[in-house]
Amino acid sequence: MHTEHILLRIRGTPAECSRWQDALRAAMPHVVWHAEDPVDPAITQQIQVAVVANPAPGSLQGFSNLKLVQSLWAGVDGLLADTSIPEHLVIARMVDPAMSAAMAQTALWATLSLHRCFFQYAQQQQHTVWKALPQKKASDIHVAILGAGAMGSAAAASISAQGYPVSTWRTTDAQHLHALLGKSQVVINLLPLTTQTRNLLNHEFFAAMPKGAGIVNLARGGHLVEKDLINALASGQVGHAVLDVFHAEPLAADHVFWRHPNITVLPHVAAITDPVSASQIVARQLKAWAAGQAIDYRVDRTRGY
Amino acid sequence: MHTEHILLRIRGTPAECSRWQDALRAAMPHVVWHAEDPVDPAITQQIQVAVVANPAPGSLQGFSNLKLVQSLWAGVDGLLADTSIPEHLVIARMVDPAMSAAMAQTALWATLSLHRCFFQYAQQQQHTVWKALPQKKASDIHVAILGAGAMGSAAAASISAQGYPVSTWRTTDAQHLHALLGKSQVVINLLPLTTQTRNLLNHEFFAAMPKGAGIVNLARGGHLVEKDLINALASGQVGHAVLDVFHAEPLAADHVFWRHPNITVLPHVAAITDPVSASQIVARQLKAWAAGQAIDYRVDRTRGY
Repeated sequence: MHTEHILLRIRGTPAECSRWQDALRAAMPHVVWHAEDPVDPAITQQIQVAVVANPAPGSLQGFSNLKLVQSLWAGVDGLLADTSIPEHLVIARMVDPAMSAAMAQTALWATLSLHRCFFQYAQQQQHTVWKALPQKKASDIHVAILGAGAMGSAAAASISAQGYPVSTWRTTDAQHLHALLGKSQVVINLLPLTTQTRNLLNHEFFAAMPKGAGIVNLARGGHLVEKDLINALASGQVGHAVLDVFHAEPLAADHVFWRHPNITVLPHVAAITDPVSASQIVARQLKAWAAGQAIDYRVDRTRGY
Repeated sequence: MHTEHILLRIRGTPAECSRWQDALRAAMPHVVWHAEDPVDPAITQQIQVAVVANPAPGSLQGFSNLKLVQSLWAGVDGLLADTSIPEHLVIARMVDPAMSAAMAQTALWATLSLHRCFFQYAQQQQHTVWKALPQKKASDIHVAILGAGAMGSAAAASISAQGYPVSTWRTTDAQHLHALLGKSQVVINLLPLTTQTRNLLNHEFFAAMPKGAGIVNLARGGHLVEKDLINALASGQVGHAVLDVFHAEPLAADHVFWRHPNITVLPHVAAITDPVSASQIVARQLKAWAAGQAIDYRVDRTRGY
């Protein structure tokens, strides 16, 4: 293969950056990766492809021949919000079966924890309370999964394999959302963040759920109206929340979520992308691109993901 | 059916006792249940069958025509230790698919929690720590299940369905235990408590596990040498323990387990018997008994369960 110059823009810890670089180099040995900033002006105009993970807004500016942006993240809401990225650029999401499997594990763990009261037992342990709580059958716990893409489908398969009735929902079924919420003891959000889904998890949404139901947000902080959740927990309308994503990450040390007894805070780890498996997917995508073939997981700006 | 007098000995809260009585009456309307103590001497000699849940030692004394004791609990170690129960009596365990399903959920939840560091994330939340921990694949987490009966098999099926390599172990494979422990990141105990298995989870057992592995005891407190666990946690040999059962229950308020950061205490709720489904199984057992047929789940005193 010919030598190729690709821009690399990864926002993360030095350890994360070097894990990505190692994995990408191993998967695509012919590529010259440009992680330096700024890139040598002699190279800048040769660059047609960027591989990015949560890049700082504006960090793709000045690459006037850029044609493809391959994300290492599944969610591309940050890229689409970056007005410095020309609209004609092709943007591709990361869809990795290993990541979908990890997300399905987290969704199943949250479902089992809510169904079998394991968060409440953890609270009881903190207060030295020995008390059995009612044990329901899986068949009596209806689980709603918002999002029917690779991750929503994987979560639905894992959860239904354990005997839970599961419904997946997509935004095109908008008119059926409240009926679905009304019968769901556990609601798991795996939607992309778009103008349509921003602030979806709000007062009205919680009010449609059965009293005491559990909410699990594994998608984006922007889906959740934080004060509406706090109010819904205070009234008992929502029994417990599992949150992996937040408006600002890391979650501020003084944020009320950290110390709320009915909120489980995870540090954006529901599904950590594995650099090795994801790099193999990037290699496949870039090979298809170089061959002039259609690439997978291409973002539709109108749809918003 | 003819009227039948059956002794009922349930040790539990008044609410538990009345739930059992309601369910048993509904499943066997022809039976006269004798929960009173003492039973009218005119009836005592008519009683051939006792249905019991964790009865106080000696509580079956004086029923000289008693022939069958049907337990409502899966574990019969307490009944077998009661020297006032004549050895010729037939004792039957409770094996209920609904209970096996609940046990499998708990075993799967513990596996997911250990594999995906959810106990550590809960600790991090208590200390306002935002930090991602390494995420392994399910295929890299070997799970050993001790006990290959109804509950062990159900747990193995649920856990392997999520992509974990699973081995079940029975006491007849004694010589292979250490090799199995050596490759297991998660060990789940679902064995019956017998003279052979008492104190099995001890220093030597923990030393055979990979450093930092998780132990899950869902069987009986008598399987565990408590001080050996505390030492194994202190050295990091065991990473985390999930304990549902204890030498004395309820667990004493001043017990060190309650406040240990690497021990999850559950109040004997891994699988709560459902009185409705279990009563239907009791009805089936007593019908077979009355017809002179073989009954299921008959205890073998030599084997110890």
